Amino acid sequence: MSQKKRIVVIGAGFGGLEFAKTLHTENAELVVIDRRNHHLFQPLLYQVASAGLAAPEIAHPIRAILHDKQNSTVYLDEVSSIDLAAKKVVARSREFPYDYLVLAMGGKTSYFGNDQWAEFAPGLKTLDDATTIRHQLLSAIEEAENTNDTAYRKELLTFVVVGGGPTGVETAGAFAELTRKVIPRDFSHIDTREAKIILIEAAPRIMLHLPEDLSAHTKTQLEELGVEVRVGAMVKAIRKNEVELADGTLIRASVIVWSAGVQASPLTRTLGVTVDRGGRIEVSPDLSVPGHPEVFAIGDLALSKGNKGKPVPGVSPAAIQMGHHAAKIINAELASGKIDVAARPEFKYWDKGTMATIGRSRAVVWLGRIKFHGFLAWLTWLFIHIVYLVGFRNRVAVLLQWAYSYVRYRHGARIITDNYSATFQGRPKVT
Amino acid sequence: MSQKKRIVVIGAGFGGLEFAKTLHTENAELVVIDRRNHHLFQPLLYQVASAGLAAPEIAHPIRAILHDKQNSTVYLDEVSSIDLAAKKVVARSREFPYDYLVLAMGGKTSYFGNDQWAEFAPGLKTLDDATTIRHQLLSAIEEAENTNDTAYRKELLTFVVVGGGPTGVETAGAFAELTRKVIPRDFSHIDTREAKIILIEAAPRIMLHLPEDLSAHTKTQLEELGVEVRVGAMVKAIRKNEVELADGTLIRASVIVWSAGVQASPLTRTLGVTVDRGGRIEVSPDLSVPGHPEVFAIGDLALSKGNKGKPVPGVSPAAIQMGHHAAKIINAELASGKIDVAARPEFKYWDKGTMATIGRSRAVVWLGRIKFHGFLAWLTWLFIHIVYLVGFRNRVAVLLQWAYSYVRYRHGARIITDNYSATFQGRPKVT
Repeated sequence: MSQKKRIVVIGAGFGGLEFAKTLHTENAELVVIDRRNHHLFQPLLYQVASAGLAAPEIAHPIRAILHDKQNSTVYLDEVSSIDLAAKKVVARSREFPYDYLVLAMGGKTSYFGNDQWAEFAPGLKTLDDATTIRHQLLSAIEEAENTNDTAYRKELLTFVVVGGGPTGVETAGAFAELTRKVIPRDFSHIDTREAKIILIEAAPRIMLHLPEDLSAHTKTQLEELGVEVRVGAMVKAIRKNEVELADGTLIRASVIVWSAGVQASPLTRTLGVTVDRGGRIEVSPDLSVPGHPEVFAIGDLALSKGNKGKPVPGVSPAAIQMGHHAAKIINAELASGKIDVAARPEFKYWDKGTMATIGRSRAVVWLGRIKFHGFLAWLTWLFIHIVYLVGFRNRVAVLLQWAYSYVRYRHGARIITDNYSATFQGRPKVT
Repeated sequence: MSQKKRIVVIGAGFGGLEFAKTLHTENAELVVIDRRNHHLFQPLLYQVASAGLAAPEIAHPIRAILHDKQNSTVYLDEVSSIDLAAKKVVARSREFPYDYLVLAMGGKTSYFGNDQWAEFAPGLKTLDDATTIRHQLLSAIEEAENTNDTAYRKELLTFVVVGGGPTGVETAGAFAELTRKVIPRDFSHIDTREAKIILIEAAPRIMLHLPEDLSAHTKTQLEELGVEVRVGAMVKAIRKNEVELADGTLIRASVIVWSAGVQASPLTRTLGVTVDRGGRIEVSPDLSVPGHPEVFAIGDLALSKGNKGKPVPGVSPAAIQMGHHAAKIINAELASGKIDVAARPEFKYWDKGTMATIGRSRAVVWLGRIKFHGFLAWLTWLFIHIVYLVGFRNRVAVLLQWAYSYVRYRHGARIITDNYSATFQGRPKVT
């Protein structure tokens, strides 16, 4: 019998994990490498940022997910380079030669060349991002309660979200709910009406990927929650607690969330293959990297035209479908014993629809010809998210947390773990 | 009608919170000041450190607990000084004049004059402490999986707990359970037998406050879990990843937890009142500060002889009882309209017993004449902790998490949120 083939997958996000689960490993060796020890349910990160959920509730250890997988090994390691010619992955602790390689490292926040903004406007891609935002948000409300300087309080109670896609919309909605519900009940010196959530979008409308009517519904629902939606507003600069728009407007804010752009993992640019401006690898129809049939690229770092000739969107269902597709191809070739590019099926994206939640009882849902919004849309959103959450524990905990929040709206994860005082040291005393 | 009296309590731990709940505020004004926005269920911090629970599961926003309390205001603020003569508390954002003051700031980790050890051996008093330890612990196991350097792997898999009191015992037990259950199932290259948990105690036996037989049972149960218990072992120095004992023994370890000492909040030493070596205020029998009948000191920062002439121990039930006692006195004086020291009852500590859990099915319980250990003791411990956990949400979430962990032992909070790779940068590659 020949030696077992070794399949290496880098990244255990939605794509990498689906790949790992689908791959047949009875006669092969699977290596999963990730920089983090957990799979993250990214669509709910904004709930951690807005203190609705605790960080571990949307994360699950990769080892725990894959521990029953035959012939598989998980490495928490950082890949420093990939040698496509020599067929090996170089990581911090060791090198991994491979027979097949799957690139599934996903993306990171893009500031379109203005990386200096990152310090003042965190993105929403990791648990650290989310807990940083949560800390800023809760601390600012506390500080507003402590001050009687009107201008300073106004700044403390202004929260800006840049980017009117699903993440930005959901974050702005959650911020609005938090301030609406929590301030009147728990705070004595501040008023909900002082809190201001501003959603900034450069395009003429938010949720640009939705039909115009749903996009309009989203805007209306956000405004009902008290969110100020500014479309056609281009960000020119971001400084500490300040956003400058192209028209010269200056917005002072205690929290600035950046959800306006993503780019592929920087590793893609080191491979010597064709990438687009966002660093995404232009894959062949079978999702392999041109010239390297043994290498696949899936998820947010892949530019596939498998969406009826159009680019496949960078959403989790697409990553999952791509992971599944790559695994099926490799399964067939492991069985036959040889790489046969001609026999490989093309990847075809199946658009299951798109949805976004707005606060705790509103949402928009678009399932091709079916479009709806409001409470029913919200229930649909809730159901889908619960079903997809990885891991029994998280599913029950999140459901419980949501049910309870819905009834009582206490925001159970409203905990500032860092040093609050240091953040506002040196501010004038109340006199 | 005279002006409302203002009662200020600093600290919303067990003592301060019980005080706030018990105080009658129909005709008085209550101000609660805390450096953190959450009440922390400290007895379960070790569960966060050992990845059994998520941080928000043992914390609850102070505002949410007290939002129904009449005439009360919560300030997240840092007290910089207290002027007993002028009857005012000076905080970062403002000053708080008071008619009655309750000092309930609790304690902090004491390194007995060796504060430089803090960097290498975190205590277990705050959520930050617990998440730091969790990060060190999980990262070390991951790094052990990645290396094939035997000596380095041995160091990575050695975890030291200094201090054989309840916190130290519970932490060591939880570490042992984690390594025993998780390593064999989820890791490929390391072996549970390589993991070593060492509990170091300077006294001749651990759990010194328990009768000798229960102390011995505790030791036996820890050893059954694989913990190495070293009694009569004095720590001479702690350096990065190294503990030096007085007999010259050097122990290399990836995690060093310090649970050997606590001291009162440093503010107590600035008041000009008599404190003991640990900074605890020597209170009058009614818990007031001598010479200041309008000031009470409760909980870990008070040295009361209300335990049948012996010092009241620094445990949460004592803090709760003290908070209750001080509130009753003030309630009576608010009703009568005047301070009457002669009429004040003495504080009498009611010892409800003591217990500690060891791993997930062992414990020791001491209720005066009743002593037991093993599984029944563990069930008792579990029941008491669930009942005392503040807040419905946390109670249900923790119960669920525990029930699930007990059956499956997945350690749901096993999440490394920080940058894992940076921790071990520069280590040699596996060759």
